[in-house]
Amino acid sequence: MNFLQERVLSDGVIKAGKVLKVDSFLNHQLDIRLLDSIGKEFAARFANAGITKVLTIETSGIAIACAVARELGVNMVYAKKGDSINIDGPVYRAEIVDKTGKPINQVMVSKKFLSKGEKILIVDDFLANGYALQGLIALVEEAEATVEGCGIVIEKGFMEGGQRIRNLGYRLESLAIIENMDARTGTITFANP
Amino acid sequence: MNFLQERVLSDGVIKAGKVLKVDSFLNHQLDIRLLDSIGKEFAARFANAGITKVLTIETSGIAIACAVARELGVNMVYAKKGDSINIDGPVYRAEIVDKTGKPINQVMVSKKFLSKGEKILIVDDFLANGYALQGLIALVEEAEATVEGCGIVIEKGFMEGGQRIRNLGYRLESLAIIENMDARTGTITFANP
Repeated sequence: MNFLQERVLSDGVIKAGKVLKVDSFLNHQLDIRLLDSIGKEFAARFANAGITKVLTIETSGIAIACAVARELGVNMVYAKKGDSINIDGPVYRAEIVDKTGKPINQVMVSKKFLSKGEKILIVDDFLANGYALQGLIALVEEAEATVEGCGIVIEKGFMEGGQRIRNLGYRLESLAIIENMDARTGTITFANP
Repeated sequence: MNFLQERVLSDGVIKAGKVLKVDSFLNHQLDIRLLDSIGKEFAARFANAGITKVLTIETSGIAIACAVARELGVNMVYAKKGDSINIDGPVYRAEIVDKTGKPINQVMVSKKFLSKGEKILIVDDFLANGYALQGLIALVEEAEATVEGCGIVIEKGFMEGGQRIRNLGYRLESLAIIENMDARTGTITFANP
């Protein structure tokens, strides 16, 4: 079991509806040493991918992307959601759509910060249905940059996002893949223990 | 002139209405080495303050707070705005009000992550009218923790927020205080050059 799986077991809280709360260390209060470990782990996994920039989406991906970018020695950029109004100038814009194709949000990045030929590592805290990640991939490809990989801290392996991203041919690395969790018994099973 | 003032001069873009865009290095694309420098600078300025936690507000404060917390060897927590629905359990909640007392937003932190007696450093990217910062201060004081200081990357010295916070007796450190800026001529004058 790796450091992240151990932390999820010790401090994650399972809520009804297969919700996992990690607000004590990952997305409200942040354990800075854990972030460093996450940064080092993704940097090691993608060390030979020639990454030129790390991309994430506001809000909870930002700290993770900073930690990874720091270890890789590159800059990061975070996509803004459709309700952000403070981007000026031309933007790449992608719809986040659900499985029926219905738009549920938009993601945007200024064209200044994603360039043709860049090698992008996309990171985020959670992967569940994968809609947001697909939106980020669409932004990168609209910019004629390359998605060299996706780094996810916690993948809900019982949802379809991870499989869909892998089926599309993208390299997807998740630090913890949750196969099952049970709010009643408080148990979490990992797919890659 | 310090490293931050130099960066504002070289890469900041002045827009009409006294808006300063720093999206190429601070709040859309992030220069990771600059963040490290910001972290080191605030950690040095507050080295003897006994800080136990860094507090900021989503979204653009997060990367800065992580950098500072990392250098201080403490954790960070970010307050969520009123439209965040994913905090469960009891929260500290403060109204952000404008100068007429009219509520313009809410900030919230889970009671789990601000404790009585903690020594808090509040950081953010910008300080203009100071309403958000006053909301964060109110959260800390509601928790019976202490505001040991506020670290701001860019203070708009021509607006009233900084003076008001200092008049209230808080220690406020700003890396760059803009005395004036002129979109027509593209000039920026610092109060502390």
